[in-house]
Amino acid sequence: MSIDVLQKRIRKLKNPTMVGLDPTPELIPSHVFDAAYAQYGPTLRGMAEAYKTFCIDLMDRLSDLVPAVKIQSACFNALGFEGVRVMQELMVYAKELGYYVLLDSMRGDVGNIAEIQARSVFGQIEAGGELFSPYTCDGITVNGYLGSDGITPFLPYLKDNSQKNIFLLIKTSNKSGREVQDLISGDRVVHTAMADLAMRWSTGLFGKCGYSEIVAVVGATQPAALKALRDKYDRLFFLVPGYGAQGGNAKNVQYAFDEFGHGAIVSASRSIIGAWKKDPDSDGASWLEDSVAAAEKMKKDIGKYVTVL
Amino acid sequence: MSIDVLQKRIRKLKNPTMVGLDPTPELIPSHVFDAAYAQYGPTLRGMAEAYKTFCIDLMDRLSDLVPAVKIQSACFNALGFEGVRVMQELMVYAKELGYYVLLDSMRGDVGNIAEIQARSVFGQIEAGGELFSPYTCDGITVNGYLGSDGITPFLPYLKDNSQKNIFLLIKTSNKSGREVQDLISGDRVVHTAMADLAMRWSTGLFGKCGYSEIVAVVGATQPAALKALRDKYDRLFFLVPGYGAQGGNAKNVQYAFDEFGHGAIVSASRSIIGAWKKDPDSDGASWLEDSVAAAEKMKKDIGKYVTVL
Repeated sequence: MSIDVLQKRIRKLKNPTMVGLDPTPELIPSHVFDAAYAQYGPTLRGMAEAYKTFCIDLMDRLSDLVPAVKIQSACFNALGFEGVRVMQELMVYAKELGYYVLLDSMRGDVGNIAEIQARSVFGQIEAGGELFSPYTCDGITVNGYLGSDGITPFLPYLKDNSQKNIFLLIKTSNKSGREVQDLISGDRVVHTAMADLAMRWSTGLFGKCGYSEIVAVVGATQPAALKALRDKYDRLFFLVPGYGAQGGNAKNVQYAFDEFGHGAIVSASRSIIGAWKKDPDSDGASWLEDSVAAAEKMKKDIGKYVTVL
Repeated sequence: MSIDVLQKRIRKLKNPTMVGLDPTPELIPSHVFDAAYAQYGPTLRGMAEAYKTFCIDLMDRLSDLVPAVKIQSACFNALGFEGVRVMQELMVYAKELGYYVLLDSMRGDVGNIAEIQARSVFGQIEAGGELFSPYTCDGITVNGYLGSDGITPFLPYLKDNSQKNIFLLIKTSNKSGREVQDLISGDRVVHTAMADLAMRWSTGLFGKCGYSEIVAVVGATQPAALKALRDKYDRLFFLVPGYGAQGGNAKNVQYAFDEFGHGAIVSASRSIIGAWKKDPDSDGASWLEDSVAAAEKMKKDIGKYVTVL
């Protein structure tokens, strides 16, 4: 089962972290852009190629340190098809390097549209008798506001040997998430109602590690909520975003883990890929070393509170 | 203001409907695919070109009848970058034909990621000093599960002369939407809490027609909910999906409109673009005539209950 693959890779590297590849113009040093524009011109293609170089260099350096990458589709989609082309190439490359690959696209759609999306990321698209897999990934983020109709089309791919996961938004790391997710409904809040749905959808979908193939996305910024959710949903694996730039820290995220240091993975994006920007005088020449150092520090900081057995 | 542009176009054509371009392999006749594969080979490019021909032929025929098109990004994204390239071309073409263009991508993301998405669909992306607008549209669907942080980055584009709209999911047309959207919270349900947020975000964002630039997506399948929402939120324009294939009908959708036949637009996808499939013996040769007839019938059927003044 796929959740076992993720847990095993975390245990092998003794590092329950995931690096988010969320490239934006602000986070990439100008020399990376200059080189790409020199070759491809000042175009969206040039920009996409700069993103590609940046992400490849980073993935090359982190593959023995970090078990998983999260690819933020919005950043690539923002450049149009040239960005999507590069994103597809990066997903293939990430798999070749052995990463667990999460596509962060936060879709939420109904019936036949959700089916098509599930097929394109987890299955195969048939064109004129030939089969294609445009996206190569192990998991995808999904938004459950539309209920079961948006989720069930993904479930067949979570079964047996298909080896896929969905990451369902439960409690997000941003402050205003509470406007919807913390509405009180009877003896629950909306985000625990969503977690209850995740448990219902998980029937028959538990890995050998005990956790569901449906991963719960629970922000790093609210330790009390993390603790309460860990206690209540002991069979949901947690993806904990919001570490670093969004204010989550090592002390807070410890509550996402079980007593073996299992059952959770913490993701950071800007604080890793944009680590060079912490030094206001930096021109970005050292960006790669800065990013690697930030990823090592994140592992070490979390290690003060969590030991992965 | 953009909502006035949409309302004016509906009034000009006396037709409060929107056609959803949701191409899938099942809905496109084999002769369209055969022609594309003959030219481009059995590839995702060939498939994307078939989608393009199909959508262009349809838009050419409907531009004097239907005021707006909804482009389903999932269908194009499913083909990888070749699909996205074609989608971008279709958006430009739709604008040239005078359609109001809604990009249906149902994203919901936080802060800087939502900002990037807003910029790519409503603003301009700068690459090496040049400015690009990869997506050409008037509106985009958004999912509010993440609260204000996911919505506010879009709001500047709704102001003044920017002429854009967001379409916020309130009550979706699928049956299981109630699992989340109908949870009771105090004297509200979750979807009315979402509509209350839409009203809060609408401050300063009302068009001359009286309606907000933030459009509420409210499914066609539940007339009681439609009626209650129309009564309560008299300043929210409604997009009503789920007509036709999903079970919504003309009698039900009448409740979405105000007494002038304004304030709402009804969308149909499969029942229009796949109209030829209603005849099990059809080989799809007449698909275009069948689609046009279905769009005319939809206008006529709704016209029995709603008169656009």
